[in-house]
Amino acid sequence: MSNSLIVLAAGMGTRMNSDLPKVLHKIAGAPLVVHAMKSGEALGLDHTVVVVGHGGEAVEAAVKDWNPDAVVVTQEEQLGTGHAALQAREALAGIEGNAFVAFGDTPFIRPETLQSMLDARATHDVIVLGFEVYDPTVRYGRLITDGDNLTGIVEFKDATEAQREIPLCNSGVICVDTQLLFSLLDEVGNDNASGEYYLPDIVGIARNRGLSATVVRCDEAETLGINTRAELARAEQMFQNAMRAEAMENGVTLHAPETVIFAHDTVIGRDAIIEPNVVFGPRVTVESNATIRAFSHLEGCHVSRGSTVGPFARLRPGAELNEDVHIGNFVEIKNATIDEGAKVNHLTYIGDAFIGKKTNVGAGTITCNYDGVFKHKTTIGANSFIGSATMLVAPVTVGNNAMTATGTVVTKDIPDGAMAIARTKQENKAGFAVKLFEMLKAKKAKGS
Amino acid sequence: MSNSLIVLAAGMGTRMNSDLPKVLHKIAGAPLVVHAMKSGEALGLDHTVVVVGHGGEAVEAAVKDWNPDAVVVTQEEQLGTGHAALQAREALAGIEGNAFVAFGDTPFIRPETLQSMLDARATHDVIVLGFEVYDPTVRYGRLITDGDNLTGIVEFKDATEAQREIPLCNSGVICVDTQLLFSLLDEVGNDNASGEYYLPDIVGIARNRGLSATVVRCDEAETLGINTRAELARAEQMFQNAMRAEAMENGVTLHAPETVIFAHDTVIGRDAIIEPNVVFGPRVTVESNATIRAFSHLEGCHVSRGSTVGPFARLRPGAELNEDVHIGNFVEIKNATIDEGAKVNHLTYIGDAFIGKKTNVGAGTITCNYDGVFKHKTTIGANSFIGSATMLVAPVTVGNNAMTATGTVVTKDIPDGAMAIARTKQENKAGFAVKLFEMLKAKKAKGS
Amino acid sequence: MSNSLIVLAAGMGTRMNSDLPKVLHKIAGAPLVVHAMKSGEALGLDHTVVVVGHGGEAVEAAVKDWNPDAVVVTQEEQLGTGHAALQAREALAGIEGNAFVAFGDTPFIRPETLQSMLDARATHDVIVLGFEVYDPTVRYGRLITDGDNLTGIVEFKDATEAQREIPLCNSGVICVDTQLLFSLLDEVGNDNASGEYYLPDIVGIARNRGLSATVVRCDEAETLGINTRAELARAEQMFQNAMRAEAMENGVTLHAPETVIFAHDTVIGRDAIIEPNVVFGPRVTVESNATIRAFSHLEGCHVSRGSTVGPFARLRPGAELNEDVHIGNFVEIKNATIDEGAKVNHLTYIGDAFIGKKTNVGAGTITCNYDGVFKHKTTIGANSFIGSATMLVAPVTVGNNAMTATGTVVTKDIPDGAMAIARTKQENKAGFAVKLFEMLKAKKAKGS
Repeated sequence: MSNSLIVLAAGMGTRMNSDLPKVLHKIAGAPLVVHAMKSGEALGLDHTVVVVGHGGEAVEAAVKDWNPDAVVVTQEEQLGTGHAALQAREALAGIEGNAFVAFGDTPFIRPETLQSMLDARATHDVIVLGFEVYDPTVRYGRLITDGDNLTGIVEFKDATEAQREIPLCNSGVICVDTQLLFSLLDEVGNDNASGEYYLPDIVGIARNRGLSATVVRCDEAETLGINTRAELARAEQMFQNAMRAEAMENGVTLHAPETVIFAHDTVIGRDAIIEPNVVFGPRVTVESNATIRAFSHLEGCHVSRGSTVGPFARLRPGAELNEDVHIGNFVEIKNATIDEGAKVNHLTYIGDAFIGKKTNVGAGTITCNYDGVFKHKTTIGANSFIGSATMLVAPVTVGNNAMTATGTVVTKDIPDGAMAIARTKQENKAGFAVKLFEMLKAKKAKGS
Repeated sequence: MSNSLIVLAAGMGTRMNSDLPKVLHKIAGAPLVVHAMKSGEALGLDHTVVVVGHGGEAVEAAVKDWNPDAVVVTQEEQLGTGHAALQAREALAGIEGNAFVAFGDTPFIRPETLQSMLDARATHDVIVLGFEVYDPTVRYGRLITDGDNLTGIVEFKDATEAQREIPLCNSGVICVDTQLLFSLLDEVGNDNASGEYYLPDIVGIARNRGLSATVVRCDEAETLGINTRAELARAEQMFQNAMRAEAMENGVTLHAPETVIFAHDTVIGRDAIIEPNVVFGPRVTVESNATIRAFSHLEGCHVSRGSTVGPFARLRPGAELNEDVHIGNFVEIKNATIDEGAKVNHLTYIGDAFIGKKTNVGAGTITCNYDGVFKHKTTIGANSFIGSATMLVAPVTVGNNAMTATGTVVTKDIPDGAMAIARTKQENKAGFAVKLFEMLKAKKAKGS
Repeated sequence: MSNSLIVLAAGMGTRMNSDLPKVLHKIAGAPLVVHAMKSGEALGLDHTVVVVGHGGEAVEAAVKDWNPDAVVVTQEEQLGTGHAALQAREALAGIEGNAFVAFGDTPFIRPETLQSMLDARATHDVIVLGFEVYDPTVRYGRLITDGDNLTGIVEFKDATEAQREIPLCNSGVICVDTQLLFSLLDEVGNDNASGEYYLPDIVGIARNRGLSATVVRCDEAETLGINTRAELARAEQMFQNAMRAEAMENGVTLHAPETVIFAHDTVIGRDAIIEPNVVFGPRVTVESNATIRAFSHLEGCHVSRGSTVGPFARLRPGAELNEDVHIGNFVEIKNATIDEGAKVNHLTYIGDAFIGKKTNVGAGTITCNYDGVFKHKTTIGANSFIGSATMLVAPVTVGNNAMTATGTVVTKDIPDGAMAIARTKQENKAGFAVKLFEMLKAKKAKGS
């Protein structure tokens, strides 16, 4: 049986005070809408349909960037959640199985929760995700139940005092047979104060047809919706704390976990050491027994076991460090493989390059990979020694066991075992420094 | 009507355990005394008088640095708050209107609170700022009221048990007609256990003259006084949290607000993105849609919309980034304008310079702006390409559409469209690297 | 009288999920076992014996690294705490005085607490360290007392409900006459559910011999044992907070103490300023009135009064900054003395060097201290001016009042007062930049 996920992501999110559509604001480096999609994907759903509206093109781009197979449909007018879900009908025409309806600004629903809803379909037709809050003043809709059966959903503003005492609240997330969903949505009207088509109305319609509904419960934290930047910041912190705790359980050494910022997809091996003040962007893998020292910034890279990075290192997308590599301070690596045992320790930029095994790259080395229009590659062999302040004007190849003299601008290839040198002879001008200083100081004294 | 602010800032603050006068310790980059002055300034007060004592010269310098029009008077001996306020008499001779008396170590009183005190002057002669604490053990003076009237102020140590149950406490801040203030202070005596002249005594003296007093209330947090470094740290954190919350409300994207350190005067536009671990020094403006990436440090600079800074970038005073500029990692910019669309991406120092539109500055470039005595300027035109490791020995001018070859030391101007090159030809010495390594290793083997 | 400390450090710590023995995990840069040793050392104990087991060699190395006089003995099989303590018998043969038995994973016991235990030996034979927890469900052993006397220790799982109501819990730490300890341990059996020899059993055995036992109390926080990485992270944070509070009490200025990471042995002088986001590794001393700016990383170094470091500076082991030195951004200093008033402000690597008084080191300077096999030293005199991008190929000496021209590779010594220059003359190729760009763009347009 094939299952589907419909993510409603058309809202503007006015309270975010942003030109960016709300669902594109990020937690741990991924847009909210991607978090909503990930829950379904973890469950192995076959179809994902995202309903966009405000900022539709940008949302579509983010959706496709994460999952090129996702279908994006547009809700031209924002006429309510029921109307939004209905926009997925064409995309899911003829698709059997169950559909979830979830929300682009509700990033934390766990796959296990969705699975429980799917399991509940064995006994009921419409499954609503609920959570319990023991506070009669919180302004969520309340779920009215009779034993195992969900008999109604009442909006907070329409609820009686007695109903507000009900702790069971409506998350809005629903699981139902795909085609039944659209059939039920057809009957939803907009005869209410807001003039909107409400998704929860399908519960009453289903029951009128003699179908059954029930509630699956989750923690309130899972259904957390994001409406303001302050809520976003709190959600980020919750998510980070959860990732930090999980990393420690998995055997990662975090000296000061509260200072390490993960991306949603960061993978760190057991007994890797992550020192304080490390920031991970998306797509980073750090293997076991690697060390990321303080004040390092990693994105789109892979650090193999035994390697050490930082402090003050930046690994950019495409940085691939093989085993026992050492990347030191004020070093930037971009789109480059650093082979086993190589060292790049100080004040260096390596971009679009391959550095061979056990090669040592001296301080102040730069791969000059850009000519203003094209990017070019630098290749350096194994066991070579790149002297300090070597400029490697790409495209260029340095052989194995080769060497460059300090301050050499390398414009042509260096064969195996050779040393490249381009240097003007040092001349010491006796007494010149003293004379120059005296002249400058005299000039200053004159006030010029 | 002209209003005045008298800030009492003469105390040493022994509990700070510091050679620095207490009011010069900073919150969010501004001395405490400046925070106290700012509240009044936000209200548009016409005269500011700061009463200094311990470390008077240093305090005066800080006061004048913030507001050159402020008058600084010295309290030679510390004989109590009443005596301190009296030192402002000469500076305010003949000045009409109301005077506030506030404290240099009480940085958080809001302008709105001062305004309420001013408003209360319509109905009462002496206005005292109070706050409520429901704890009979806290050692603040208590305000005794009768309906709307303040009838007395009793020090905690003199208070009966019943009086200590009064929640209304004295902040010490007072608003009263300026000349009346000094007239009342003339009557304050020092016939008490400490032998000090107490400012609050003016309330009783005023009532004896048939004048009326009342209380304006504020939150306890506003009247927070700083006495220890631990209290200073907590005050800093409160202030930072308030600035972070305000920034988010204003539409600034803060992924991890708890890691961003603001200065008291930081201005950030809507939809600007401030990544984790960014530190703002004083006088920074970041426009809308600019991005400040992680591990960046900004002081006295301006970042225009669409520009990106960092990670690991430092903007020092006088850095002016126009629109769509890109400043990358391990880059320092000081006293320099980077024009629209220009890029300075890696390991570079730009000081005392102008970089033209869309010019690309290669990695490892340095503006050599200092000759040991003077600083000189570097000017680079538009659409130019500065090759990696170019040394620009200022004063020097590079034209538009110009270029420098990698590793060039530029000592004379480069015309539009020209390429400057200063390079020794690369020579490859075959087999030399291998021989050299063998020799060094043999030497090592011999243990030399 | 000579006193001894036995630290039990043989456990694996399975719940740490690590290949590293638990006692080698670090807090504030020191392994747990070192923290346990330090408490005893602060008391001036004469003998330290550490009982190791899992990962014994690595633990021994860490123990010896901290205190070469410590004796390390191996517990081949882990048969319980009593058996572990017994392994110290040979190492302490013939030693008089008292012995403490403490734990390698309990790092926070204060010297004052150990002293109280020692003092209690005046009146009792066996001293047990206890702490109070008012929660009958916490799974610690309970201490049964009768007035001043400790009459028994009952494991939680063997305790009656009434016994579990006893707030006094067993920390496991014991102080007893050294030779008596081993005599008592000889009688401990393993006839219990776990088949282990339990150290606390010595209390009952002592009482059977007519000896007396008593309890010394400490805070629960002191006896905190570390079992998981989450507990380790919390312990680190507690320790850091205590160090931050102590630093502030001592008069250190910490703008954002929660962002400063100390090592266990960091020493900071009064009125030193530590800006946000500073990380201290082991063996750092910062004198009074020095300033460590944001994003700095210090290890094994000494910063004298009046010096300023950072932002974005890294001081590595052996960095010795004399008074009024200025180290700026993206600068690395390793094994080098920077003499009074010298400046190294931008993008520089100084390793294995001496920089003389008031010498100014320009941006992009590198001491080329490594030839691939050996490290060599650079010596620079006083009042010299090292031009930007100077490469100092060590071993090399620069005199006093000397100068290097920008971009010079210095391979031979520079006499006092001389200026070294090695430079190719700049050539401007008119129109060449424009032609080159046109060519590259044409190539790009062709799609090549």
